[in-house]
Amino acid sequence: MAETPVYDLIVIGGGPAGYVAAIRAGQLGKKVACIELERAGGTCLNWGCIPSKALLKSAELYLKMKQAETFGLGVQGLTFDFAKIMQRSRNVADQMAKGVEFLFRKYKVDYFIGLGQVTVPGLVEITAGEHKGKFFKTQNVLLATGCKARRLPDLPVDGERIMTSREALVPRARPPASVAIIGAGAIGAEFAYFLNAFGSKVTMIEVLPQVVPAEDEEVARTLQRSFEKQGIVIHTGTKAENIQVGQDTVKLELVKGDHREALEVETVIVAIGVVANLEGAVSPKVKLDLDRGFVNVDGNYQTNVKGIYAAGDIIGPPWLAHAAMFRAVNAVNGMFGHGTPRLVKNSPGCTYCQPQIASIGLTEKAAKEKGVAYKVGRFPFLAVGKAVAAGEPEGFVKVLADPTTAEILGAHIIGADATELISEFSLAMTLEATVDEMHATIHPHPTFGEAVMEAAAAVLGEAIHI
Amino acid sequence: MAETPVYDLIVIGGGPAGYVAAIRAGQLGKKVACIELERAGGTCLNWGCIPSKALLKSAELYLKMKQAETFGLGVQGLTFDFAKIMQRSRNVADQMAKGVEFLFRKYKVDYFIGLGQVTVPGLVEITAGEHKGKFFKTQNVLLATGCKARRLPDLPVDGERIMTSREALVPRARPPASVAIIGAGAIGAEFAYFLNAFGSKVTMIEVLPQVVPAEDEEVARTLQRSFEKQGIVIHTGTKAENIQVGQDTVKLELVKGDHREALEVETVIVAIGVVANLEGAVSPKVKLDLDRGFVNVDGNYQTNVKGIYAAGDIIGPPWLAHAAMFRAVNAVNGMFGHGTPRLVKNSPGCTYCQPQIASIGLTEKAAKEKGVAYKVGRFPFLAVGKAVAAGEPEGFVKVLADPTTAEILGAHIIGADATELISEFSLAMTLEATVDEMHATIHPHPTFGEAVMEAAAAVLGEAIHI
Repeated sequence: MAETPVYDLIVIGGGPAGYVAAIRAGQLGKKVACIELERAGGTCLNWGCIPSKALLKSAELYLKMKQAETFGLGVQGLTFDFAKIMQRSRNVADQMAKGVEFLFRKYKVDYFIGLGQVTVPGLVEITAGEHKGKFFKTQNVLLATGCKARRLPDLPVDGERIMTSREALVPRARPPASVAIIGAGAIGAEFAYFLNAFGSKVTMIEVLPQVVPAEDEEVARTLQRSFEKQGIVIHTGTKAENIQVGQDTVKLELVKGDHREALEVETVIVAIGVVANLEGAVSPKVKLDLDRGFVNVDGNYQTNVKGIYAAGDIIGPPWLAHAAMFRAVNAVNGMFGHGTPRLVKNSPGCTYCQPQIASIGLTEKAAKEKGVAYKVGRFPFLAVGKAVAAGEPEGFVKVLADPTTAEILGAHIIGADATELISEFSLAMTLEATVDEMHATIHPHPTFGEAVMEAAAAVLGEAIHI
Repeated sequence: MAETPVYDLIVIGGGPAGYVAAIRAGQLGKKVACIELERAGGTCLNWGCIPSKALLKSAELYLKMKQAETFGLGVQGLTFDFAKIMQRSRNVADQMAKGVEFLFRKYKVDYFIGLGQVTVPGLVEITAGEHKGKFFKTQNVLLATGCKARRLPDLPVDGERIMTSREALVPRARPPASVAIIGAGAIGAEFAYFLNAFGSKVTMIEVLPQVVPAEDEEVARTLQRSFEKQGIVIHTGTKAENIQVGQDTVKLELVKGDHREALEVETVIVAIGVVANLEGAVSPKVKLDLDRGFVNVDGNYQTNVKGIYAAGDIIGPPWLAHAAMFRAVNAVNGMFGHGTPRLVKNSPGCTYCQPQIASIGLTEKAAKEKGVAYKVGRFPFLAVGKAVAAGEPEGFVKVLADPTTAEILGAHIIGADATELISEFSLAMTLEATVDEMHATIHPHPTFGEAVMEAAAAVLGEAIHI
């Protein structure tokens, strides 16, 4: 019988937290394994952020081509091949997953497909898959098992009539003729934009009073206006009730206060957030301190059980890949004495439909609720030469700053390149920069980024182009 | 006879420095006039940055549409209407110029079309145009007359066979069948990309050893490779001699060392930089301290003559609109006691072809020449999920940092969204940030901006995805 292999670190889960943690440990010269049930890259890379961005790019280009005439161009016979669009998204995901697998080899990460389970601290077993029954000793475990899509109670996901984002990313021959998207957060908004672009009749249903409920109210209003102009039907403050799954359609009742309205669609996509996904990752003997299924950790990303760490979505919000990667790197750095681990402080959030949305820090609403004083600066892309030249004048940048110190408290962007522009605010907030400093920073002309500088200047009453 | 109007400030020139200075003075409640020979917005807005970006957008979209199949889209016929493409660029410029004129009214700037001339300090005359003969008294003058395209000696610009960037932006029915672009800087590269996209046979001729001579060498090599793949013929280290303008073509000799090669093209675009444009702005009685035609100023943007200030391109490099605007705001702020004026320290440079180029701070070559020690971090867009999903994996981010303090010394980007990504480095350098701080900043996933973070991490040997 072979000796039980001994690791410095075993990572359970190969998503953005897990694979990044494993690579980082490999970089630090540690003997590390990563056990992933499906494929390196996890949900984000294989069934989330990455394939969805490929789909959105096709949608963006398709809609842009419809406007070709505006740009002096002529298009005859514009068509799309939905199966090919979906297949491209799979190819992109596959390419990126192969990239992670390459990095595993490069950094000498042992990569096992299977279900990893912590038997007791220091011992990990693979309990399913081809490596089933393998045991490993390890000094440290990092739980990085992430989240999965929340489902509606009593509404089984069948992948045809009822889907979560995951099933909606599975290749199919044509878009649904009609779709109800329950939940108007980032994921719901992205599917709405994508499917609407390719001709699905899209209805969004959001129980909260605004679309993209986590975002600034003005941003949400702008998105709703834009989506409605694109042809998407939106019901906010509305519940979907009496969902009846038939052979070819789903019937729903949309309930808003006393008003009830019937809706029949080919497909329902449920996009109502995520739940913790710790199933099978620890044996019942390991008593982890949990909070609604999420693993509690200390400032070193260590759980209540010594030697068991956790990072990524499984330790709670923000449930975002970039926060997961950040946590993973810091957990591993801390574990192996490479600096003091940092916790997530300022993490941007992005929605990749068009117009894009990106934000960081406090919204006005949150500032009011917390009693934080603030001043606002706004700047519209309509006043930005590059945006007009690019035919993308929609949206604005909005900055919240401390009225006394001028420190940036939050930023909210809606517009064509919002998701790229937000990083400058992320750096600014990491450095506790002020709006004066941002205003004093030369932004190239002409760029969308000038709106960032002008919004900062607007807080001071010094924006030029408005 | 009406009394001579008295101003707090008269700005001569209505380009990025001039119109911004006038607006800023208006914001500060000053009585201000702006005298512009052609139209508010100057060269940049009317015959430079802005219309060229409109043209480039059409080219980008056209080339992207040719790749539609990659994205699962189908096109039966693809055409372009060159006259319409050019006309759109005029409409965009017109819209932005109207925007400046609106701001002039909003901030109570008196706007005169004409040639302004400082007779003596405190007195300005309009010497040409409909307001010819008007005199104004003023406490301060700001010279913001900018630059104009440098021409080749003995080669008159006729707008047909021989053009500068300006004539090349004048609407015409079709692109030239063939064009030689003399000078492979930012402007030359943009025209090469644009005209090549629409079928012109483009030859670039650059006397220096690399295209985009001001940029990092690796960036230049990447651009050259990309341009050649696009079909552009490039001659570096090459002079154009014996330029013979005929009826329908221009004949040139390309001279590289001992090698001579003949070239015949329909049109030549001369894009070899700029010269100072102070003509007529000061009377011979005003003895300004000049340097090769550019106006010398002190730390308050004041010339050697009290009460006469200058800002923008006319005070020397960097000859870029954003630097001009920055200087204008600071000159006016200082003039009227609104804080201490700042001088341009870190100013990004951008080239808007595809792949785009953007940079700030030291190149490796400059660091070596100055004896500045540095470490390099590089990260390719090929390893960025968003870039792959968007079908834009070309290019990289490269960061130079101080090996001791880790302070960022320079950044060089080539890739699809380079001109937007550079602003984060501009902020970082304004704040004297380190690569550690940039690495510790959460960048949203998936974005092109992750390459910025990873390149910073690469300086430290801590990039994850490579």
